[in-house]
Amino acid sequence: MKGVILAIAPNARLVDLSHEVVPFHTQQAAFVVAQAVPHFPEGTIHLIVVDPGVGGPRRALVARGRRALYVGPDNGVLGPLLAQDRPADGPAQVHSVGTPDFLPPGRSATFHGRDVFAPAAAHLGLGRPLADFGPKLDEDLSTPFAVPEETSDGWRGAVLHVDRFGNLITNLPNALADRMDAVEVAGQRLGLVARYGAVERGQPGAVAGSVERIEVFVREGSARDLLGGVVGMPVTGLKRP
Amino acid sequence: MKGVILAIAPNARLVDLSHEVVPFHTQQAAFVVAQAVPHFPEGTIHLIVVDPGVGGPRRALVARGRRALYVGPDNGVLGPLLAQDRPADGPAQVHSVGTPDFLPPGRSATFHGRDVFAPAAAHLGLGRPLADFGPKLDEDLSTPFAVPEETSDGWRGAVLHVDRFGNLITNLPNALADRMDAVEVAGQRLGLVARYGAVERGQPGAVAGSVERIEVFVREGSARDLLGGVVGMPVTGLKRP
Amino acid sequence: MKGVILAIAPNARLVDLSHEVVPFHTQQAAFVVAQAVPHFPEGTIHLIVVDPGVGGPRRALVARGRRALYVGPDNGVLGPLLAQDRPADGPAQVHSVGTPDFLPPGRSATFHGRDVFAPAAAHLGLGRPLADFGPKLDEDLSTPFAVPEETSDGWRGAVLHVDRFGNLITNLPNALADRMDAVEVAGQRLGLVARYGAVERGQPGAVAGSVERIEVFVREGSARDLLGGVVGMPVTGLKRP
Repeated sequence: MKGVILAIAPNARLVDLSHEVVPFHTQQAAFVVAQAVPHFPEGTIHLIVVDPGVGGPRRALVARGRRALYVGPDNGVLGPLLAQDRPADGPAQVHSVGTPDFLPPGRSATFHGRDVFAPAAAHLGLGRPLADFGPKLDEDLSTPFAVPEETSDGWRGAVLHVDRFGNLITNLPNALADRMDAVEVAGQRLGLVARYGAVERGQPGAVAGSVERIEVFVREGSARDLLGGVVGMPVTGLKRP
Repeated sequence: MKGVILAIAPNARLVDLSHEVVPFHTQQAAFVVAQAVPHFPEGTIHLIVVDPGVGGPRRALVARGRRALYVGPDNGVLGPLLAQDRPADGPAQVHSVGTPDFLPPGRSATFHGRDVFAPAAAHLGLGRPLADFGPKLDEDLSTPFAVPEETSDGWRGAVLHVDRFGNLITNLPNALADRMDAVEVAGQRLGLVARYGAVERGQPGAVAGSVERIEVFVREGSARDLLGGVVGMPVTGLKRP
Repeated sequence: MKGVILAIAPNARLVDLSHEVVPFHTQQAAFVVAQAVPHFPEGTIHLIVVDPGVGGPRRALVARGRRALYVGPDNGVLGPLLAQDRPADGPAQVHSVGTPDFLPPGRSATFHGRDVFAPAAAHLGLGRPLADFGPKLDEDLSTPFAVPEETSDGWRGAVLHVDRFGNLITNLPNALADRMDAVEVAGQRLGLVARYGAVERGQPGAVAGSVERIEVFVREGSARDLLGGVVGMPVTGLKRP
């Protein structure tokens, strides 16, 4: 894919965001990109290939949000990104990618990342307008990340992402931290603390994280290993009494 | 190695192709590069360091094919690449790398990638002609990938590469797909289908792949895990009755 | 972090040195960077984020050595680098990073790599002088790597780094190789040989390595796997009789 992009757009700057998304987990993929978007330059093109279940009827999409552009499959992965990066004047502009003559004509049945998504991203990078790729979609594809359900004692959330250090990033927003004193995960109650250093080495805790989400961590260790943390695992935020 | 290249050729664009080649497996390394060559810009320099068994009599080679340039050890890894990328007018030009004064004089016994291959690639990138590196070789080093042997019922092939998703890429060319209805691997008969989506989730199949080779896959799963797939494993293509 | 850097310094060239340092192991991190510094261009900025135990009182530091610049936490990781890259006229210049107005004002409690170190590195890359970041430190922070203790029969060293091939890089300098005929590690005596090829396949040995340190290897295999090699493991250099 990088060769394809550089052959079309020799001055493109390429940055690998992650190769560690659980296969087929579009919500996690969306999260990994969503946390990066505000920190990359305006106009960055985020190219997302998730779901090797290609060869079915999935369309490729190109989209322009307020800050960034996106290329990805029509499998829901763009939804949270377009919700987060919504332009001031309405839904993000989204076009489906057809077979314009600037895209390579032969497409393998299995590697659309190389044959469709990468050349589309490269042509976007050269400044080609979205309308050249194919028809504009009328629907608003934006679908915010699921909001944790509120109950009498707290909020029912889940693990959105497990990072390379084994921290569990939840879908509980930092904004709830003031009303929460602990989280419950894997049958354990973990106090919400101000920083990693507030618990003993090897002990777990929860903290308002750097991507505006409550994170479960183990100080100088791995919450993935200690708590068996996986993407999708339930995490409950417990209200202050 | 990247530091060495950038110190010599500050404008070089560097792309990591793979760090997942089975150590010492030159055929797999050649395959990984071979599938990338047609998609990278013309004139790309492919730098291949495989075989930490350095310190013996291996020469370093620089070569120019029709589309690309190559730097690598004289251990057979360049053979399939020079066969695939053969210039119209004869075998690829190959020179062995001597001790020209533009290369660093001190060489460690163990890290020729840093001390020989990387600086050679950087100087090629600056436009230095092959003849400056050392004597031209008279032999034609090109050696195509082994062709599967044809039997009365099919073709005896093997796994050339296991990709990051656990797909098994074989040496059975897609061109045989019309005459084949299944493959046999790990004691199982797998139907040849048009796309991943043609089998149920978690089930294995075979497909004409994106690099012109039959691939064994598991839909939304890993053929490496399900079938114990490894590089070199036999795979038989079965003729249509 | 890469997005942050490119948003500030769009022409920055970014190279990943390693993501394989044992968490919290500052000596190993220092070693990985130290071996790269002489091979990267002069003026390269080495950005080191090790120790997720942030949120405590760790300062961020910026430093200028003879050849390179450094950004990292005040947890000892810069010590060996500043000792190796000491300017001719005295200790390296080191400043602690305060809250100058060119750095982002909001800082997460957990991701200083993104919020402090990356923007500091980017601004250094734009040519901003160290004095703009914060006060100069009076102490000399340089602390050379621990020197192996000499005994009557040899030198007591340790494994500094385990590389991706499973080689064990020790803190025994190559300069001692002339006075040594073997090393002892994991209860085995391994002869010091001139190159990997001097032992049989699958057998272990020791060699004067490419980063000026004695390395323990297994020919076409992994010393990590065969000998249970880990960072910090004792390795004794045995004197010639």
